Amino acid sequence: MAMGSPPSLDALSPLDPETFAVESHAVIDFIAGYYRDVEKYPVRSEAEPGSLRKLLPEAPPENGEPVEGILEDVQRHIVPGLTHFQSPNFFAYYPFNASTAGFVGEMLCTGFNVAPFTWVASPLATELECVMMDWMCKLMGLPDRFLFSGGGGGVLHGSTCEAVVCTLAAARDRALGRLGHEGITKLVVYASDQSHSTFQKGARIVGIAPSNFRVIRTSAASSYGLTADGVRDAVEADIASGLVPLYLCATVGTTGIGAVDPVAALGELARRYGMWLHVDAAYAGSALICPEFHDYIHGAELADSVSMNPHKWFLTNMDCCCLWVASPALLTSALSITPEYLNDVSEGKTDVIDHKDWQIALTRRFRAIKLWVVLRRYGAAGIRAHIRRHVEMAKCFEQALKADERFEVVGPTRFSLVTFRLRPRYEGDHAVNALNRKLLNAVNTSGRAFMTHFVVDNKFVIRIAIGATMTGMQHIRGACELLQEKATQITTTATTTI
Amino acid sequence: MAMGSPPSLDALSPLDPETFAVESHAVIDFIAGYYRDVEKYPVRSEAEPGSLRKLLPEAPPENGEPVEGILEDVQRHIVPGLTHFQSPNFFAYYPFNASTAGFVGEMLCTGFNVAPFTWVASPLATELECVMMDWMCKLMGLPDRFLFSGGGGGVLHGSTCEAVVCTLAAARDRALGRLGHEGITKLVVYASDQSHSTFQKGARIVGIAPSNFRVIRTSAASSYGLTADGVRDAVEADIASGLVPLYLCATVGTTGIGAVDPVAALGELARRYGMWLHVDAAYAGSALICPEFHDYIHGAELADSVSMNPHKWFLTNMDCCCLWVASPALLTSALSITPEYLNDVSEGKTDVIDHKDWQIALTRRFRAIKLWVVLRRYGAAGIRAHIRRHVEMAKCFEQALKADERFEVVGPTRFSLVTFRLRPRYEGDHAVNALNRKLLNAVNTSGRAFMTHFVVDNKFVIRIAIGATMTGMQHIRGACELLQEKATQITTTATTTI
Repeated sequence: MAMGSPPSLDALSPLDPETFAVESHAVIDFIAGYYRDVEKYPVRSEAEPGSLRKLLPEAPPENGEPVEGILEDVQRHIVPGLTHFQSPNFFAYYPFNASTAGFVGEMLCTGFNVAPFTWVASPLATELECVMMDWMCKLMGLPDRFLFSGGGGGVLHGSTCEAVVCTLAAARDRALGRLGHEGITKLVVYASDQSHSTFQKGARIVGIAPSNFRVIRTSAASSYGLTADGVRDAVEADIASGLVPLYLCATVGTTGIGAVDPVAALGELARRYGMWLHVDAAYAGSALICPEFHDYIHGAELADSVSMNPHKWFLTNMDCCCLWVASPALLTSALSITPEYLNDVSEGKTDVIDHKDWQIALTRRFRAIKLWVVLRRYGAAGIRAHIRRHVEMAKCFEQALKADERFEVVGPTRFSLVTFRLRPRYEGDHAVNALNRKLLNAVNTSGRAFMTHFVVDNKFVIRIAIGATMTGMQHIRGACELLQEKATQITTTATTTI
Repeated sequence: MAMGSPPSLDALSPLDPETFAVESHAVIDFIAGYYRDVEKYPVRSEAEPGSLRKLLPEAPPENGEPVEGILEDVQRHIVPGLTHFQSPNFFAYYPFNASTAGFVGEMLCTGFNVAPFTWVASPLATELECVMMDWMCKLMGLPDRFLFSGGGGGVLHGSTCEAVVCTLAAARDRALGRLGHEGITKLVVYASDQSHSTFQKGARIVGIAPSNFRVIRTSAASSYGLTADGVRDAVEADIASGLVPLYLCATVGTTGIGAVDPVAALGELARRYGMWLHVDAAYAGSALICPEFHDYIHGAELADSVSMNPHKWFLTNMDCCCLWVASPALLTSALSITPEYLNDVSEGKTDVIDHKDWQIALTRRFRAIKLWVVLRRYGAAGIRAHIRRHVEMAKCFEQALKADERFEVVGPTRFSLVTFRLRPRYEGDHAVNALNRKLLNAVNTSGRAFMTHFVVDNKFVIRIAIGATMTGMQHIRGACELLQEKATQITTTATTTI
């Protein structure tokens, strides 16, 4: 075929294999160096708002620059101002733990850069995702109904919130099929005062009236877990008001304090009232691969969906959230829209999984290969050992803290989270809360560790979430010493002030 | 402080810098080799459903394995069955183009593995994201109202659908503030029959009644763009029925055929009827960095939000979607929920951006560093040249196709998409559609290229979307020859059959 001469514009050759290898190798060395040094940086960034904007030009450069200069600027401008989630002294939030295998898997995902939105768009990527979801389901001891062979199935999302939005939409559309769309104003979602904020946000996103989101109070008596009575009372009251119970959230390992809801009891209630039960095991789901924690998921056969985040504590770099559903048809009937440009016109590929119908977005990454590399590189036994090390460290930390009479442990220490505070003495609640807040600030501004807090029963408590990949016993010891040192300083100052 | 002896469990040391470097370097070489060979593989996977499951064990391995064996299995089991989005002969959907800089940026994102959900959780990551959104805004010639300094601002999402869900939720909550939550059943969303399916899906996710999603027909007369008259008629009819116009979608470069809606005219209508106007420039947004395409975004100062995907045609590996809003407060008032464990107890950090309130999920990746590396490595001029190469190639392809009287170009050739078909001769529409479907199948099963299709005015048209990073003129020539060769084969066969 006759064709005009090729464009005369110089090609950048942005995927030239030799350049790719040279520049990527340089970045690997850069990141290896970062891991070598990460402990030296203050864990929590002390950067000031607007500080970076002053250092960067107002517009992108017109001409390209070599990668070396870019890495120098990353080192100079970015690294010192990051909060270092991979520092062994990072105890804030819940862990986001990286690993070599997680990184390698992410590189393969990014290198192939395929988008398995429909089966035909990337058959083996979809196939691998299905197998990985089954592997994870078995590893966590979830019921067979969440396996593809059991009529259920799974999908990798980027976050729990996406998973929650999808299951809420599925539950909502099932209910509206019965009630008509006007019924949307009657639907009620139930969570506890310990549930993740993602449920409130998700319920709002899918159009549940904010006034129909029920926050059920928990207490120390049930170790801050929901009780069947508490849920039943709330549900009955709503039914009496003409509302329709839609969705109940059970959490295994809440964010604030690590509480566990009774999955089996909640599952029975959900069945009785026709509610969707979602089990959120975002953090603690990783621990469920150890048999000693299996009891926490007892009753999951009564759940409609379960989620957990390998990107928290499972050596899998962000992002990766496993969602299983017992009835994929409910999910896909809420989320499936196939425009003509995605119809497969080839023959014979029926009954395949199109994961776009299991999530919010069309675009999706090949996250399954990351999970595959992690599971194979470390093996189930290796990951169990990793989890158990952190659980053991949490116990050591708790014991050490209990030996110092100034401190008290507040929540139940489950998994690898310890919640504690300086004990109230003569001061009232307000004063002791202020003191603990001061202690937390002193710890974090020291740069030697980063912890966060929670408030339970009006008590300001400090959380230490153990799980950063490089955390060893010396860092746990260091965190204890830091707390004691700062406690001495601020209580001395406080006394002096009086 | 006294503390028990350290856990005796062997540590995996999953972030040991030396192991990290050795294993990661091996993967870099693996991926460089993949790019070297990618042209040799059939572009579209011919894998059979269930084929991978037969090759893999039923459960994850108990013990870890060396990375070499894992890479061998990736090469043996995965690579041959992928659809190769990075092949220079990938012309399907829209491009998802990778680059060395995009890969390097993603490695830094994955290596640091920080989560900038709140400003304090990762100050410089949030700061960099704000600066990058301003850079991109300027580069695309968007109005100043989308800059942070102009009262607007931007955020990096993973996909257009997430961006659309967030803007729909913001528009919905603004309307419900006036109407009360019962008003949700009255809200109407408008799109064209060429708009991306993401709008229909997004509207459904946020609780808009499926019967209140209006698909306005377009025609060849307006090059398949919306017309102000068409939208006005639909809106007036809904108002007359007691419904409330909520949200209007304008697209610059539709997926099926590359159509462009008249942004300014639609913006005026949106203002008049109090609708939110979103401009979706997912694919063609990249071209807007070239002044010759600026007219397409004329009127964007009347839009409430604009989105485009650097992960399509901007040398940025997945995932990366830019969303700008004119009024961040509308977005955050729909999406902001801050639980106690995310409250910042340090002092003096007020008036900062918490990007968790600009998106669905709490968890988010440090995508800004990827965009920074891409913009600096290639520069604005380099990326413009990259875009123009593909636009030029599309023109060459179109000319070559027009020179063969068996083919006709169907849509307007804008940007780098050409839509065409075998011309009808004696056969009716149905027969010519079947023939084109056959041609597309023959092309794709050859393994030498992958193209997809669309249906417009009942015509089955083949789409060739040029934009894979490694595509050169020789591949465009090859695609033309392939189409001609297969056209000859199937028309000969068709004649023989008769």
